[in-house]
Amino acid sequence: MRIASIQLEGRPVYGRVDGDQIVVADAGLLARYPSLADLLAADAVAEMGVADGFKIPVADASFNPVIPLPGKIICVGINYRAHMKEMGHGEPDYPVLFTRFPDTMVGSGQPLVRPRNSDNYDYEGELALVIGRTAHHVAAADALSHVAGYTCLMDGSLRDYQKHGSQFTPGKNFHRSGAMGPWLVTSDEIRDPTALNLETRLNGEVMQSAPVSDLKFDIPYLIEYISGFSKLEPGDVISTGTPAGVGFARDPQVWLTPGDTLEVEIDGIGVLVNPVAAED
Amino acid sequence: MRIASIQLEGRPVYGRVDGDQIVVADAGLLARYPSLADLLAADAVAEMGVADGFKIPVADASFNPVIPLPGKIICVGINYRAHMKEMGHGEPDYPVLFTRFPDTMVGSGQPLVRPRNSDNYDYEGELALVIGRTAHHVAAADALSHVAGYTCLMDGSLRDYQKHGSQFTPGKNFHRSGAMGPWLVTSDEIRDPTALNLETRLNGEVMQSAPVSDLKFDIPYLIEYISGFSKLEPGDVISTGTPAGVGFARDPQVWLTPGDTLEVEIDGIGVLVNPVAAED
Repeated sequence: MRIASIQLEGRPVYGRVDGDQIVVADAGLLARYPSLADLLAADAVAEMGVADGFKIPVADASFNPVIPLPGKIICVGINYRAHMKEMGHGEPDYPVLFTRFPDTMVGSGQPLVRPRNSDNYDYEGELALVIGRTAHHVAAADALSHVAGYTCLMDGSLRDYQKHGSQFTPGKNFHRSGAMGPWLVTSDEIRDPTALNLETRLNGEVMQSAPVSDLKFDIPYLIEYISGFSKLEPGDVISTGTPAGVGFARDPQVWLTPGDTLEVEIDGIGVLVNPVAAED
Repeated sequence: MRIASIQLEGRPVYGRVDGDQIVVADAGLLARYPSLADLLAADAVAEMGVADGFKIPVADASFNPVIPLPGKIICVGINYRAHMKEMGHGEPDYPVLFTRFPDTMVGSGQPLVRPRNSDNYDYEGELALVIGRTAHHVAAADALSHVAGYTCLMDGSLRDYQKHGSQFTPGKNFHRSGAMGPWLVTSDEIRDPTALNLETRLNGEVMQSAPVSDLKFDIPYLIEYISGFSKLEPGDVISTGTPAGVGFARDPQVWLTPGDTLEVEIDGIGVLVNPVAAED
């Protein structure tokens, strides 16, 4: 099933994607599970599957980030081997983890913001997973049973701020500099996430293209490692890292500028599309 | 004014600290502002100041973290010069920032958890500020007007996990490894936070003692820098860094173990006291 979080008549709702329509969760469903994270926490995705209510064309929907307010967004740095090389990193012994605040993310179709105080604005297309069941000290062998589904994520990075010091925090947390969507594809439809291919396009030109199988730290291990310190809850997001081809590592370097269109496509999931706008 | 977040009859409330009593926010106040962050966002602290309701002795209160669910907890690393030296760091050009998830924090009196998978559990006593007014692209000269108040913070760190790679994230985000409290002291009572002294005690022995004036990056600059990328909202927390004397840098090293009692005291604010417990 594909489930999207959208803004409808000024409030955040969610619905099942059915072809070119979104079947919006009805009032009863929204009363029981106000957000998609609540639906996941209650293990009630099946109720969304049979809901039959108000429909809105996908083309007319105003998308929010798949999980509008995740309790945690944990991102993996330099996890694809070819990206380690282009960024000048050796192979890490453990996953390199940083975090993004929820207000750094927009939904598909919403403008990414190139900030006023940096023009080193880079794209990173990624596969992200959404936790469906609390995970604390979970073994890799059991990890995938804690995944509700998958989505595309744009881990927008202001490279000058990212390199101000040892910690990536500033460069990865500019307001509305990233995106997540267009929707969640539940894990029953993606038995093997490593079989997926990821592609990032800037104004139609392919900038990143790689199989997810090129990840150094695979998804079960990431969940084992992260749940070894953090109690992951339904709606929490783990983004698995970006492959080679980022703008920083190109010659000449490529930076996102207002007017650009960025797409992150993962086969079996969909296309996350965002225009780039200047900060007011 | 001192305002504490406490758990009362199974639900999170807040109240004004009046001598050895806490005057709990009444039903009307809680309906309008369900949490202390909501009270700050509405600029309604004065209403709490005149509230006269149910009282509970401070000694009997079950404290939550001052802000139970901050949208952001941003911590500054190696900001006291003597701590830079003991950790083997040079002076950074910009604030070194990392983040903690809200579920890493407990309130005063609640047990800190020494995890099952690391015994490198270190203390860091810190002064933290709580944002009272949205701050985005704020100049240092205007920064303090965005601060609602101050509190003590224990930035508990699992040093082995902190050093797994370049990013501090794992070592700083163990479940219930940090604490924040005991209460918020509003900024009208602390005109000059640099005039404060901070002391950390382990089982009564002084481990850290320093004036806040030893900060390399002062509070106005921290807010200017952070609000240059992040839109800070009421209830967001910035912890300003820890002085010298951490357990990692001692010879022999000192680690927190179950049965210990840790105190972080800042004059003019109060004492954050936590026992240390083993993970189940």
